Amino acid sequence: MAKEITGRKENYSQWYNDLVVKAGLADNSSVRGCMVIKPYGHAIWENMKNVLDQKFKATGHSNAYFPLFIPKSFFSREASHVEGFAKECAVVTHYRLKNDPDGNGVIVDEDAKLEEELIVRPTSETIIWNTYKGWIQSYRDLPLLINQWANVVRWEMRTRLFLRTTEFLWQEGHTAHATEKEAMEEAMKMIGVYADFAENYLAIPVIKGTKSANERFAGAIDTYSIEALMQDGKALQSGTSHFLGQNFAKAFDVKFASKEGSLDYVWATSWGVSTRLMGALIMAHSDDNGLVLPPKIAPVHVVIVPIYQKSEQLSLLTEKILPLKKELEALGLVVDFDDRDHVKPGFKFAEHELKGVPVRIAIGPRDLENNTLEIARRDTLEKCTIAFNEAPGYVKNLLEDIQSNIFNKALKFRDQNTYKTDDYEEFKRLLDEKPGFILAHWDGTTETELRIKEETKATIRCIPFDAAPEEGKCILTGKPSSRRVLFARAY
Amino acid sequence: MAKEITGRKENYSQWYNDLVVKAGLADNSSVRGCMVIKPYGHAIWENMKNVLDQKFKATGHSNAYFPLFIPKSFFSREASHVEGFAKECAVVTHYRLKNDPDGNGVIVDEDAKLEEELIVRPTSETIIWNTYKGWIQSYRDLPLLINQWANVVRWEMRTRLFLRTTEFLWQEGHTAHATEKEAMEEAMKMIGVYADFAENYLAIPVIKGTKSANERFAGAIDTYSIEALMQDGKALQSGTSHFLGQNFAKAFDVKFASKEGSLDYVWATSWGVSTRLMGALIMAHSDDNGLVLPPKIAPVHVVIVPIYQKSEQLSLLTEKILPLKKELEALGLVVDFDDRDHVKPGFKFAEHELKGVPVRIAIGPRDLENNTLEIARRDTLEKCTIAFNEAPGYVKNLLEDIQSNIFNKALKFRDQNTYKTDDYEEFKRLLDEKPGFILAHWDGTTETELRIKEETKATIRCIPFDAAPEEGKCILTGKPSSRRVLFARAY
Repeated sequence: MAKEITGRKENYSQWYNDLVVKAGLADNSSVRGCMVIKPYGHAIWENMKNVLDQKFKATGHSNAYFPLFIPKSFFSREASHVEGFAKECAVVTHYRLKNDPDGNGVIVDEDAKLEEELIVRPTSETIIWNTYKGWIQSYRDLPLLINQWANVVRWEMRTRLFLRTTEFLWQEGHTAHATEKEAMEEAMKMIGVYADFAENYLAIPVIKGTKSANERFAGAIDTYSIEALMQDGKALQSGTSHFLGQNFAKAFDVKFASKEGSLDYVWATSWGVSTRLMGALIMAHSDDNGLVLPPKIAPVHVVIVPIYQKSEQLSLLTEKILPLKKELEALGLVVDFDDRDHVKPGFKFAEHELKGVPVRIAIGPRDLENNTLEIARRDTLEKCTIAFNEAPGYVKNLLEDIQSNIFNKALKFRDQNTYKTDDYEEFKRLLDEKPGFILAHWDGTTETELRIKEETKATIRCIPFDAAPEEGKCILTGKPSSRRVLFARAY
Repeated sequence: MAKEITGRKENYSQWYNDLVVKAGLADNSSVRGCMVIKPYGHAIWENMKNVLDQKFKATGHSNAYFPLFIPKSFFSREASHVEGFAKECAVVTHYRLKNDPDGNGVIVDEDAKLEEELIVRPTSETIIWNTYKGWIQSYRDLPLLINQWANVVRWEMRTRLFLRTTEFLWQEGHTAHATEKEAMEEAMKMIGVYADFAENYLAIPVIKGTKSANERFAGAIDTYSIEALMQDGKALQSGTSHFLGQNFAKAFDVKFASKEGSLDYVWATSWGVSTRLMGALIMAHSDDNGLVLPPKIAPVHVVIVPIYQKSEQLSLLTEKILPLKKELEALGLVVDFDDRDHVKPGFKFAEHELKGVPVRIAIGPRDLENNTLEIARRDTLEKCTIAFNEAPGYVKNLLEDIQSNIFNKALKFRDQNTYKTDDYEEFKRLLDEKPGFILAHWDGTTETELRIKEETKATIRCIPFDAAPEEGKCILTGKPSSRRVLFARAY
């Protein structure tokens, strides 16, 4: 198989795009900025969804579904929200087409113009809070803990598969609480759920923290995020959780009768992750041979490739392989027996490497004689030969080892590419020469943040939760700062 | 709990709507024709999705995701498809809003007009076949067996929750094959999957058959459907599968190199079920007390209600109930212990009946003394008292019994409301006085079908696969007919 993947060092961005397309994860579509998620990519996304959905349910959330369309006027209700979300969006203005009298297909029927335009949801706070108004009367209706799996649309000018597309898939949690404290705890709990998922399933180490005011979600009091470091030294925001205060409750007039009898506005959170996580997964671990997938999220754990010349050999191998496949499946693994006859083993090896299957087993006639098989691990590309009957136990352990090795490798990479500096010139030099995370002091103003961004293209990724108090001076202005914040250039 | 559900006999349509809203399944939204699927309704839909998704995968299909938007011109490629689908639809014409200079919120930015309008998908054959063109080159790329779970939009003038909404959720399978025979077999296989699902999970007996030319999917050579009978004697089409021939392959120029070296157009199918199934489920089984859910699809199987006066009694009951709950959960059941303190048992009973929980267990202080508990089944509303330690086995069997009883009841209802007639006057009288399925002869012409529809509001639901050859005369025209077809008034 001619993989034709550009090397990471040659052109990282092209490497990413090659990988996404050639590993069968996604394709550009005929619709500007919209992608097609192909079966293999979708299988990975389904695994992500399943794990997250279980975690949401385990923390007391239920799924629901709200309309795709939002009346235009809803956006104007919350002042900062409209600025952030109601601008670059898909606008539905008509509800009918008719035959072109000139015979050129169909045209918009101008008689079918909507009285009020509908916006294809870029996020659903407004339509959901408009609905919650009817659902919440008393403290007994709270907390309301709801999640939605949905497609959303944001009209992006520059798009990249998974990382930034006009339409993308995501989940958005929207919760309502009786007290400020409870809502703040919820927002914090969910960023914790995301961090746990990123680290223990996607094997991506993340830094949890608070966004600066400038990077806050439009309409939030506070935004928390998890930030991951990609192999090119750029950061990728991988999930956010927002404490919304009473902003949306006030905008949509959602009040509840408290236990004490007062009528109060409800407190809110929202939180989401999207198909962008696919981008994070790919860029965090993969190499020039293709994808490297953590076993906990891989659609196929083990592929078995028979090595043979003649069809009688294949029959003998198949007799041996099928019971092994069953044994591995009994351990809860997804196993692919690749007995395609029209491609050579070398082609298969390259293809399964490209697709990131964590473990490859090869068996040939000599193995039959010796009662052995060859096992190759995708993460390190190491191979070994072991006794046939030891395979199931070996593979089971190997998958666990691969999962933790991938995480540790990414963690080591991040540690090696996280710098501290107190000097603005070094800060700039690092960004150009050794891109990564930079922990530096900042005076806390949006003005300074924007000037640093303009001069260096680096942004404040977050103020890490675990940042130790430390007296220092802002790297740009020299004004006092009480802790370091996390800078990086970002996707 | 004041259920306030209109009786079925009083006003069937109002009964349905009351039930959907009051059992917490769905609500109308502020967006015309779009519904909000509430958590309890969504939980039922998720159960349906999970079963169907497993069945699709077990028959070799993979999930993928295609864009929400379809360029307007795509619809004109297939002549009959455009007539059927590109008319009543949501049209995106602009991609940006801007602040109203008069200060009234946001308005459409006329500078951001799309060159070609985008249609919010009403169904995805066109965008998918446009994509398949890039995926299919040789017979080795076939069959291509793909399913998509998605939202679709059809601009409906008269909407009803679940049954007909502007936006709805569904799955759409789209497969590509090398031969006509294989595609026809696929279309037939999938209508079989739907029938199996309807009967063995939803407990709804269905009739499989072929649609008349007039009722065919726009762009199909043949459409198969499953037809169910609701309690008001109206039919509900519950799933369709289409043999598309080479229509879409020709429209989007999708050819493959055959094994023999020729370049041929690909053969296609598509098939789908939607949140309409929720309507079928509700209307097939429920009664004036609320929902009746088949256990295989119920979000909660068993609810346990403690009967007590004083809080010490609740403590004692709880001690006894928690281990029972665990035991039932170990059997794979979802169990709700309803220990809410602010509502009375009677209120709880009514609420769980409304929500259709298949089994209710009640335990009071006297049961503690006698080591008993009371079990009520939702389908028949029968109650019995049994020994406490027999509960798990009893409940397990009871759930199986409820599942088959619900199906048998619906089957009996259908049998009792299926008529044969050879007389047009009787045909009309039956429709008015004893609505149900009518098996009658038809001359096979669209003209006759449309006249019958106009005169009686009945349509041909399908030509049942198992209709025995039988010489007869068309009920309207007296022209020869070789088998009876299935008529009914329908949703």
